[in-house]
Amino acid sequence: MATKHILIVPGDGIGQEVTAVGKKVLDKIAAKFGHTFTYDEALIGHVAIEATGNPLPDESLEKMRKSDAVLFGAVGHPKYDNDPSAKVRPEQGLLKMRKELGLYANLRPIKLFDELLGASSIKPEILKGADILFFRELTGDIYFGEKGRKNDGDTAYDIAEYSRYEVERIARKAFEAARTRRKKLCSVDKANVIETSRLWREVIQKIAPEYPDVEVEHQFVDATAMLLIKDPRRFDVVVTANLFGDILTDEASQIAGSMGMLASASVGDGTGVYEPIHGSAHDITGKGVANPLASILSAALLLDISFGMKAESEAVINAVDQVLKAGFRTRDIADQQIPADKILGTEAIGAEVLKHL
Amino acid sequence: MATKHILIVPGDGIGQEVTAVGKKVLDKIAAKFGHTFTYDEALIGHVAIEATGNPLPDESLEKMRKSDAVLFGAVGHPKYDNDPSAKVRPEQGLLKMRKELGLYANLRPIKLFDELLGASSIKPEILKGADILFFRELTGDIYFGEKGRKNDGDTAYDIAEYSRYEVERIARKAFEAARTRRKKLCSVDKANVIETSRLWREVIQKIAPEYPDVEVEHQFVDATAMLLIKDPRRFDVVVTANLFGDILTDEASQIAGSMGMLASASVGDGTGVYEPIHGSAHDITGKGVANPLASILSAALLLDISFGMKAESEAVINAVDQVLKAGFRTRDIADQQIPADKILGTEAIGAEVLKHL
Ligand SMILES: CC(C)[C@H](C(=O)O)[C@@H](O)C(=O)O
Ligand SMILES: CC(C)[C@H](C(=O)O)[C@@H](O)C(=O)O
Repeated sequence: MATKHILIVPGDGIGQEVTAVGKKVLDKIAAKFGHTFTYDEALIGHVAIEATGNPLPDESLEKMRKSDAVLFGAVGHPKYDNDPSAKVRPEQGLLKMRKELGLYANLRPIKLFDELLGASSIKPEILKGADILFFRELTGDIYFGEKGRKNDGDTAYDIAEYSRYEVERIARKAFEAARTRRKKLCSVDKANVIETSRLWREVIQKIAPEYPDVEVEHQFVDATAMLLIKDPRRFDVVVTANLFGDILTDEASQIAGSMGMLASASVGDGTGVYEPIHGSAHDITGKGVANPLASILSAALLLDISFGMKAESEAVINAVDQVLKAGFRTRDIADQQIPADKILGTEAIGAEVLKHL
Repeated sequence: MATKHILIVPGDGIGQEVTAVGKKVLDKIAAKFGHTFTYDEALIGHVAIEATGNPLPDESLEKMRKSDAVLFGAVGHPKYDNDPSAKVRPEQGLLKMRKELGLYANLRPIKLFDELLGASSIKPEILKGADILFFRELTGDIYFGEKGRKNDGDTAYDIAEYSRYEVERIARKAFEAARTRRKKLCSVDKANVIETSRLWREVIQKIAPEYPDVEVEHQFVDATAMLLIKDPRRFDVVVTANLFGDILTDEASQIAGSMGMLASASVGDGTGVYEPIHGSAHDITGKGVANPLASILSAALLLDISFGMKAESEAVINAVDQVLKAGFRTRDIADQQIPADKILGTEAIGAEVLKHL
């Protein structure tokens, strides 16, 4: 019986709708297991720019630092995407949060619920049993290096950078996770072309002997993008840099049937942040059709990783599984065999999950 | 009836085996259509380092400049991959060739032969009819920017760079190709985070009004990695930067059943270079099992693009189609329905293609 303070940071677009459902699940867990969860909310992204001019107001950052965990939605808005010269952007809030909270390790578990075998564009016989845990480095690389223009704005540049200790700390987390799983680690880089990747590979090679029970392989990012689809079961734990991780985990969402199912945990020096890997999805915002299961599964990761509440976390995952077994789906994960009356909106599928808790 | 001089540059690993077959196909075409093709060979990559210490000897570059087209194999060797600190690397030869010949546009057509619908890990109903033409920028980005170490080697950096004219010239090629196809162009970037991508998007937006008949969309690279697998038919022409193109086209090879089927054309200011997108594949080198169809299809692209020989090019593609229709496969594209006696090695499947010419 614990007392915890959780900050809800919905952000933009469907972030609002899905975190509302995630919070209800946390509430129900508290009631069921006798915990006391208190909540607060904070602004980030486009909504924060609209309210304060700042994509991550100091007040939000302070609230994050003081809470025991953050349940996060998404950031982004088409307005900025179509205006490449915008100086203030929602994503700056997200990146600043990651940097300021020292969230250097982004864990993205990719696992298919059996009931969703048919929802993927990949053949069931290729997918069945696939279970990958990605460790994406989250506070370095081309995301955080100096960037700008020269030659009167006619040339743009971005600097990618990694230091040995940045690679080492994420690599150690990945090696340790591999130990608790199938003991295979795939490190992904582009060491045949870029220097940051060569440093990356050096560091992995250097610390690998400390984990003799873990089998290590190195793959180039291009080959990995292909192998993930060709043979996802060959992967256990995958560790990679920020940009490659961004691309490969979105791709890998197809292994889990839909992006709408994938949760992630960002951890590091302080408060952990838990969020779906899907974005703000403005095309479906406010329509009540967004899939909240990734936010619910993010809440499950939060319970497990930040609060050490294994049973509570499993109860949530199990409830999602029951709802899928009962045949309920949101639109994005419904294949043609699903009858129309089983296709539910955001709140209705959330209510089904609550029933199983 | 034309006279053309073709340079064969096998490079490393299976490059030797597959270009040998590609050359036979060119020979047969010359005989059949009454052309005179003369040939020479040149070194690049690991084999060039072994012979001369230089991954792209001046002599090779001179031969390339003087020839009417280059049929290329692959470069790379595990020796360097496992030694991140190697100063001289096979890939430097490839990159120098691209830069020196001004090969800024890399065309990668992704189209599935109907007979291979079963060979992909993606469901046939998702794949059927998919037909994508990638334009990958090939002489800029993080591949060619300054790179190095600082802080006593403890920090590595790579600079990504794009200038307006570099984006514009590849974009124009892509817009023009879209005009001859389904008139859809998808430009892929990461403009929500990196500055080179914001310049990229600006340039596309600026020139788009000159092609009012082409429908343009902008996608982030992470979303694209997902959409390619989820719904490949939504894409027609895709244009993107060097690194994103490297990753996305390898991924997209699964749309064509196997990497062993994909050809590419690198064109720009001078001699065009035609090569499979697969690499040197040292694990199967010398075993006689490599799939030469990508090299044969590269020869088809060479005939079409560098020599303007449409009928000749179609004859090659048609011959490959006939061989697949007759049920012959190499190992990499054989699904479980293919009987063992139809699974052929490199030379044998090449011989089948020759029979249909
Ligand atoms: C919104 C964007 C900046 C972000 C990223 O690229 O990291 C997103 O794609 C993600 O994966 O969390
Ligand atoms: C070998 C390597 C340098 C090369 C690249 O990254 O461009 C290859 O992957 C390709 O796609 O041609």
